[in-house]
Amino acid sequence: MKLNCDMGESFGLWKLGEDEAVMPYLDMANIACGMHASDPMVMKKTIELANQYGVTIGAHPGYPDLQGFGRRTIQMTAAELESYFVYQLGALDGLCRSESTRVQYVKPHGALYNTMMKDDAVMCSLLKALSRFNPQLPLVVMAVPEREHYLELASGYGVELLFEAFVDRVYADDGRLTPRTMQGSSHTSIETITSQAIQLIENQSVTSISGKTLPVIADTLCIHGDGALARQIATVIRSQLECV
Amino acid sequence: MKLNCDMGESFGLWKLGEDEAVMPYLDMANIACGMHASDPMVMKKTIELANQYGVTIGAHPGYPDLQGFGRRTIQMTAAELESYFVYQLGALDGLCRSESTRVQYVKPHGALYNTMMKDDAVMCSLLKALSRFNPQLPLVVMAVPEREHYLELASGYGVELLFEAFVDRVYADDGRLTPRTMQGSSHTSIETITSQAIQLIENQSVTSISGKTLPVIADTLCIHGDGALARQIATVIRSQLECV
Amino acid sequence: MKLNCDMGESFGLWKLGEDEAVMPYLDMANIACGMHASDPMVMKKTIELANQYGVTIGAHPGYPDLQGFGRRTIQMTAAELESYFVYQLGALDGLCRSESTRVQYVKPHGALYNTMMKDDAVMCSLLKALSRFNPQLPLVVMAVPEREHYLELASGYGVELLFEAFVDRVYADDGRLTPRTMQGSSHTSIETITSQAIQLIENQSVTSISGKTLPVIADTLCIHGDGALARQIATVIRSQLECV
Amino acid sequence: MKLNCDMGESFGLWKLGEDEAVMPYLDMANIACGMHASDPMVMKKTIELANQYGVTIGAHPGYPDLQGFGRRTIQMTAAELESYFVYQLGALDGLCRSESTRVQYVKPHGALYNTMMKDDAVMCSLLKALSRFNPQLPLVVMAVPEREHYLELASGYGVELLFEAFVDRVYADDGRLTPRTMQGSSHTSIETITSQAIQLIENQSVTSISGKTLPVIADTLCIHGDGALARQIATVIRSQLECV
Repeated sequence: MKLNCDMGESFGLWKLGEDEAVMPYLDMANIACGMHASDPMVMKKTIELANQYGVTIGAHPGYPDLQGFGRRTIQMTAAELESYFVYQLGALDGLCRSESTRVQYVKPHGALYNTMMKDDAVMCSLLKALSRFNPQLPLVVMAVPEREHYLELASGYGVELLFEAFVDRVYADDGRLTPRTMQGSSHTSIETITSQAIQLIENQSVTSISGKTLPVIADTLCIHGDGALARQIATVIRSQLECV
Repeated sequence: MKLNCDMGESFGLWKLGEDEAVMPYLDMANIACGMHASDPMVMKKTIELANQYGVTIGAHPGYPDLQGFGRRTIQMTAAELESYFVYQLGALDGLCRSESTRVQYVKPHGALYNTMMKDDAVMCSLLKALSRFNPQLPLVVMAVPEREHYLELASGYGVELLFEAFVDRVYADDGRLTPRTMQGSSHTSIETITSQAIQLIENQSVTSISGKTLPVIADTLCIHGDGALARQIATVIRSQLECV
Repeated sequence: MKLNCDMGESFGLWKLGEDEAVMPYLDMANIACGMHASDPMVMKKTIELANQYGVTIGAHPGYPDLQGFGRRTIQMTAAELESYFVYQLGALDGLCRSESTRVQYVKPHGALYNTMMKDDAVMCSLLKALSRFNPQLPLVVMAVPEREHYLELASGYGVELLFEAFVDRVYADDGRLTPRTMQGSSHTSIETITSQAIQLIENQSVTSISGKTLPVIADTLCIHGDGALARQIATVIRSQLECV
Repeated sequence: MKLNCDMGESFGLWKLGEDEAVMPYLDMANIACGMHASDPMVMKKTIELANQYGVTIGAHPGYPDLQGFGRRTIQMTAAELESYFVYQLGALDGLCRSESTRVQYVKPHGALYNTMMKDDAVMCSLLKALSRFNPQLPLVVMAVPEREHYLELASGYGVELLFEAFVDRVYADDGRLTPRTMQGSSHTSIETITSQAIQLIENQSVTSISGKTLPVIADTLCIHGDGALARQIATVIRSQLECV
């Protein structure tokens, strides 16, 4: 079970996330690609930071919307989605090459991630684009009950999937996340977060908002790199993973 | 002697350049990378068009300034210049990979090109960035009298140079271009353009604004892809090149 | 019956629309505000052009999406919609003040216009924002069968409506426009356009795609300022209006 | 002597500045206008905050460069400078109107401020643009030894000036600021800042980097709203001003 976290979400003078504090605990760093967050200088520094700790780099592409941080869905054609997606993968991979490393997986961001998990046409656009860019790169998707369905879609494009679960987000009964706009959609206490992590690691399950136990088969756990507790959470989850 | 032209300079709904008409006559297509012109969809279409005619693709990065079309110098640190530059090379190369081709050379655009030819620190930033991204890619620079100086700079970074001359721009006496802001800095008649091209091809020289004959040793001729005469100029210069 | 047209849709070096040719025939110029098209310099020139011909200036705000030309819906909260909207009205009005004129009405653009006509919550956000900015400015909306409904909504905010009809767009049977993505959603022959204009002017009706006659009570006719026939269409419709 | 501070410098999800903490101590809030920082929602909230504490609102326009936070000079023509400038004044004034207030002065930001103080052509472009937008609005400039020169320039455009001094920036011997890129160009201890403020308030002078006492006749003191000490500095300077 790998630990992944969104990194490189600062922009220009604006800082977001405790990247320096959290990076040492990660296996996988999802680096924003300049369209919803990050910029070429932030990307370069984040790649250097990942290299320093031997963390695998993934591209974290999003909708082109800095002001909205990629959290607003933009209605796009398949052709638009594919081209924006590859543009971002290429940009990050270019900066990686300059730092003697490469992009090794892809995880869409924010509204693009949500749309992909709701709309198979969008999922297929991203799979198609990824297979044309580099079919060796796995795509990170959410570990939902429809696992087989997504594996089938992906195999049609020759793309491998990595399923991820969230330690600090509240799950709905359908195995999806409760929306960010909902009050209480994220856990904030380190105890609850740790407990959800342990359950995911040891039991391959999660307890939903109404108390149901849902099976969750995940390859990787997602934590968040911003907030006062980011470093502490990273430390705790890391040590849980080491215990297994 | 190769023929190069800036391509892919449309943006969104806005069209610029007669790419479809001019592409068949080119050896090298300098494709804008989305920061001063172009967008992921335009880039993809332009790559497809270049592929269709077997035209070699080069990256044409510029200052991040769509509104100013990359023609306004932005004061940047070396670190900023390098990262913006590589970001653009990577983005275009990513889209190329999706179309089974690759970026094969680099030619900076507009104010970035001019600044590079005026300020050795900027030239060195770009050379350094290019050598880190991929030292196999030659950099297109202007064929100016200080040829040896630039060859020496480039060789320090292990980068090859391609020198280019302009068939439709008026040269100053120092072998540089007269500025675009000057009235009459571009030739507009096809006769003058053809004549300058023939002189460049056959005599390796150009006649400056004051009538001086200046030696110009060029690897490639640059034409422009916009304007009513773009196709006609491309045809004529192409046939001159074939005659040699 | 007034003639309105979208103006000032160029951006930087990219030109769109035959503003100089069409402006003399207009009553109302809907000027883009820099978020989906236009920029401060284009806006200033377009205001000068409108002033020159005594054309009334309206703000033409859109979604913040230059690459998509404001034709892609962006999911926004009411607070976001309102602030973006007022920002654009203010920016254009500021440039108007510098040219001794003022914004005198507002017509949303593209996807924002369509969303407003589909979603009453969005319509109300815009009405609310307009009433807070300046309730003296009428809002241009589409002349649809639900006229009374919209008048009621607007009167709740103390805002006046202007209803518009389209001379060159094909109407669906429900009195709305067929979508731009549909083949044949716009008339292209000047005869059809003229005929639709005459029917709108003389009979207050339009013939839908399936041949139905639909009543359309409009205060203003919208023409388009781009395309080879723009000037000719403007001339013809103008003369039809003069005949009435 | 008024206290002014840059406010509203957040952007989207990215927060910058302790606006809530500092606003209560200010006389004048310089609000960013969306081109180098801020966005329509941030602007609206900042206006509401200023209104809440009865703080006078000024426009704080900058170069169009979010990534560079308006700290990189962009080479622009006078026409470009003027239009960008007015666009921003209008946008903020529009949002002010919606909150029943108005922009009451103008202070350029960052590189635009520095360029204005170095290049009279730029100063005159801004004065001209301001006089055309609304000559009732004073322009905030730096209190430098060339006071009479700037008063003369401004009076040619019918614009009033407000001279400002800085409590936390280190002055060079010529009465200008040492550049931000220089190590130690800003005071960081609250004692030094307070001491510079008291000297400015009581003696109308400042001590330069080399120890010279320079006369500084200022109408307003500028403090900074970011950093851990922002609130404390605001409190201390405010109480100093109250003592006078």
